[in-house]
Amino acid sequence: MSVSALFDPDGIAVIGASKTPGKLGNDAMSNVEACDTEIYPVNPSSSGTVFGYEFVDSVHETDADLALCCVPGHLQPDVLEECGEAGVSAAVIFAGGFAEAGNDGRELQDAIEKIANEYEITVLGPNTAGYAIPHLDLYGSFVPRIREVQTGNIGVVTQSAGVGITMSFQLTREGYGISAMFGLGNRMNTGFADIIPMLDTDSRTDSIVIHVEGTEDVDELFDVCQAADTPIVAFKVGEHDIADFAQAHTAAPAQENAIYEDGFNEPGLVTVSSMTELIDAGRALADSPTPDGPNVGIVTAQAGPGIIITDFLKGTEATFPELTSETQERLNNLLPGITYTENPVDTGRPMPEFGKVVDAVARDGNVDIVLVYEIYEDSLGYPVDELEILSTEVGKPILFTVAGPDHALEDERRQMENAGIPTFNAPERGAQAVAALIDSISEN
Amino acid sequence: MSVSALFDPDGIAVIGASKTPGKLGNDAMSNVEACDTEIYPVNPSSSGTVFGYEFVDSVHETDADLALCCVPGHLQPDVLEECGEAGVSAAVIFAGGFAEAGNDGRELQDAIEKIANEYEITVLGPNTAGYAIPHLDLYGSFVPRIREVQTGNIGVVTQSAGVGITMSFQLTREGYGISAMFGLGNRMNTGFADIIPMLDTDSRTDSIVIHVEGTEDVDELFDVCQAADTPIVAFKVGEHDIADFAQAHTAAPAQENAIYEDGFNEPGLVTVSSMTELIDAGRALADSPTPDGPNVGIVTAQAGPGIIITDFLKGTEATFPELTSETQERLNNLLPGITYTENPVDTGRPMPEFGKVVDAVARDGNVDIVLVYEIYEDSLGYPVDELEILSTEVGKPILFTVAGPDHALEDERRQMENAGIPTFNAPERGAQAVAALIDSISEN
Repeated sequence: MSVSALFDPDGIAVIGASKTPGKLGNDAMSNVEACDTEIYPVNPSSSGTVFGYEFVDSVHETDADLALCCVPGHLQPDVLEECGEAGVSAAVIFAGGFAEAGNDGRELQDAIEKIANEYEITVLGPNTAGYAIPHLDLYGSFVPRIREVQTGNIGVVTQSAGVGITMSFQLTREGYGISAMFGLGNRMNTGFADIIPMLDTDSRTDSIVIHVEGTEDVDELFDVCQAADTPIVAFKVGEHDIADFAQAHTAAPAQENAIYEDGFNEPGLVTVSSMTELIDAGRALADSPTPDGPNVGIVTAQAGPGIIITDFLKGTEATFPELTSETQERLNNLLPGITYTENPVDTGRPMPEFGKVVDAVARDGNVDIVLVYEIYEDSLGYPVDELEILSTEVGKPILFTVAGPDHALEDERRQMENAGIPTFNAPERGAQAVAALIDSISEN
Repeated sequence: MSVSALFDPDGIAVIGASKTPGKLGNDAMSNVEACDTEIYPVNPSSSGTVFGYEFVDSVHETDADLALCCVPGHLQPDVLEECGEAGVSAAVIFAGGFAEAGNDGRELQDAIEKIANEYEITVLGPNTAGYAIPHLDLYGSFVPRIREVQTGNIGVVTQSAGVGITMSFQLTREGYGISAMFGLGNRMNTGFADIIPMLDTDSRTDSIVIHVEGTEDVDELFDVCQAADTPIVAFKVGEHDIADFAQAHTAAPAQENAIYEDGFNEPGLVTVSSMTELIDAGRALADSPTPDGPNVGIVTAQAGPGIIITDFLKGTEATFPELTSETQERLNNLLPGITYTENPVDTGRPMPEFGKVVDAVARDGNVDIVLVYEIYEDSLGYPVDELEILSTEVGKPILFTVAGPDHALEDERRQMENAGIPTFNAPERGAQAVAALIDSISEN
C-alpha cells in the first residue's frame, strides 16, 4: 500500500459526481476538473457531461487510480469494493459517520478498513474535507474556492481538515501558500506516519507543519518526525480536557497530553500553541538557515516595539549576547550618541544608516539570529540591498518585522522574502518566529 | 492646565516648519495642513509658503494655542518660553535627548518642565512621535502617511508612540481605525492620568487600550482606569527584565512588574500580553455589550478550529454551561443526528440551518457570550440576517471568527460588524477576544 497515488494520480474518478451546484459531488468536480490527468465523473443516475467530462455508470469503466468518494457513508463499503475490483489504489472518503460517531460508525469503519486493506487501497479519511496540492492543480476536496489556495513551500498535515483549510486560506491571504495540505480525518489506514515521509522527500516542501488532536499511531508519528530532514512544527491541541469533543470529531483516542509534550520535546522538533504561530514558525523554518545557537541580536528603528519583542523573547530560550567591540565601534561610528547601542540596538527612528546598522549586528560573531523591527517610511524604504547581501553572505537567520500602511510596504516586503528574509507583520509574530528557530535546535 | 487644546486646538503653530521634504518640520506640516483650524508655519530662516501657509518668524505672530515643536532638544527651553509668552496652551515636543538620555537630558527636561508649568502649558512628550485624531484630520505627528490611519471607535494611549503608530496602522490595515492615538513619550507633565479621562468622556471612544512600559504616576493611572466608564485594556510590557532598555526609551522608572499586575487585576480592567491581543480585546469591548457572566456558548461549522478555541478558553475563566433542554430540542430538530450538539455545538460543515443553530445557542438562558466559527462558503454565505436580529434582541456579546478566502468574505464580515458582531480572522484571536470580555467582569 502506498500513498503515491494521492500525490501523483493517474486518472481520478469522482464517485457520486453531480451536475447540481452546491452538491458535494459537484463541488468536488469543480475543484478537480483542471488537474492534468483524466477525470471520470461516476454516477449511474446521471448522463451527459459535467465540467466537460462525460458521466460513466461505474468506476469499472474508468482507468482511475484515485477515487474521490462523494457518497454517503452507508454506501461506502460497496463503493470501496468496486474501487478495489477496478484497480483503484487510493481513495478519499469525505463522508462522516464512522469511528467518530459511536459504535455503529466504528463497525462501518471496520468494514471499509477490511475492504481497503484487502485491495491495498490507501484511504484518506474517512471524515475529511480532503487534500490539496496547488502546484499540480490537484484539489481532492469538496471545499468551495479551495483552488484559490496558492503554491508555497509549507507542507500542512492536519488531523482536522477544517484546520488545514483554514491555515491554507490564511497562508494565501497573507501572501504565501502551501506545497500540499492533507486533512487526515479519522486516519483509518493513512495517518501522519504515511504523509509526513512523503512530504519530507518532496523538493517543494521546506517545512512541515502538523496539527494533532490525538492519534493511535503516536509512536510512529514521533519516529517519522525524528527521522525527517525537513523541519517540523507541531501544534498539539488538548492542553485542557477536550477529549469528548475530539473523540466525536476525528475519533481521537483519550490520551494524556504529556505523551505528546514529551514526544515533541526533542531537538529538531518545534511546538507551538496556536494556528497563527504554526504558520509563522513554519515560514521561519522553511525560509531560514538553521541557527548555530540561541544568541539573538535585535535591531529596531522604534524602541517601543523592540522592547515588546525583547520582553517576549526573554521568556524563551533566547539569549542576548553582548556585541563584539568591533561591532560596538562600527555602531558608534554610524550612530554617534544614538539612543541605545547595546543589544537590542535602537536607532530611535528610521534613518539612512539603518541598513548598515543591521549589517553590523548580522556580521557580529556573537549573534546567531537577527530580528529587525522597522515602521516603514517611503523616503527611506526598507534596507533591501543590504539584506540581500547579508542573506547570501552571513548564513544566519535574519527575520524582519514590518509595520506601517500595508500598500506602502508590500513591494519591499516581498523583495526581502524573495531574498530569504522572512517578514512578519506584528511584533509578537516576529518574536514567536525567532523562538521557533531556537526551539528547533534546543535540547529540551 | 488642561489637555483640551490637544483635542480641539484653536490655531496650530508648527515651530521649525520646513519646505524641505524629509525634514521633521516638513513631515509635521504635511500631516497637519488639512486640519480645520488656522495653521502657522514658524521659522525665522524661511519665507514664502509651505502647503499654502505663509511662514512667520515667531510664534508671537500667531494666534495658535497648540504648538508642534520640530526643533532639536537644546532649543526647546527658548521655544517653550516663547510659546508661553505667546499664549500657547499645549505643545507637542518630538525631540528626544531628555530624561531618557541620562543626567544632562534629565536637567534639560527639568528646565522645560519648569517653563511649561510656569506658563501652564500641557506638553505631550518630549520624546514622542505625537498623536492623531483622524476624525478631526488632526495629526500632531511627524510620522509619514499617518494621515492614512482611519477613524474608528478605539482610543489608543501608548507610552511608546512607536507602539501607538504600529497599532494605528494595524487597526487600519485590518479595516478598523481609532478615535484617537496618543504617544506619551516621557510623560513630563501629561501622562496616562491626563489623557484617559478625556477619552473616557469622548463619545467616539468605545474602548481605551493602553500600553505601559512603566510610569511614575502609577497610582493615578490605576485611579483613572478604575474611574472610567469606558472599558479599558492594558498591555503592560516588562514581564521579564527590560528595565535598562525601557529607561533609555521613555525614562520608564525601575519598578516591580507586580505593582501593575495587582493594579490592573481589578474588575472592569482587562490585561493582555501582545499588541494584537490589545487590538482584539479593544475591539471586542468597544463593540459588545457587557456579558452577564463567563458562560460561553460555542457554535462551530468545523470541529477542528472549534476544538482549538475550546481548548484555549478552557485555560481562562470561561465556563461552558450545558444548554437548556429547550435549546437541545431545537438543535435536535434542526440537525437530527448531527455530530456534536453539546456545547460546543458542531454542525460538521456549513449548512443552511447554521444561522438558526447560532440563534438557538444565543437565546439559551445559560449562555452569556456566544463565539461562532465558520469557514465561508459562497453558496451559503454568513448568517447575517439572523445575527442582525440577535444583536438587537439578545443583548449578549456575539463574536464571529471568520475563515476562508479574504475577498469572498469581506462584505459579509463588514455587515456583521456593522450589526454589532465583532469578527476575528484566526481561531486564537476570537478566543482571546472572548477571554478579554470575561476578564472585564472577572473579580480577580
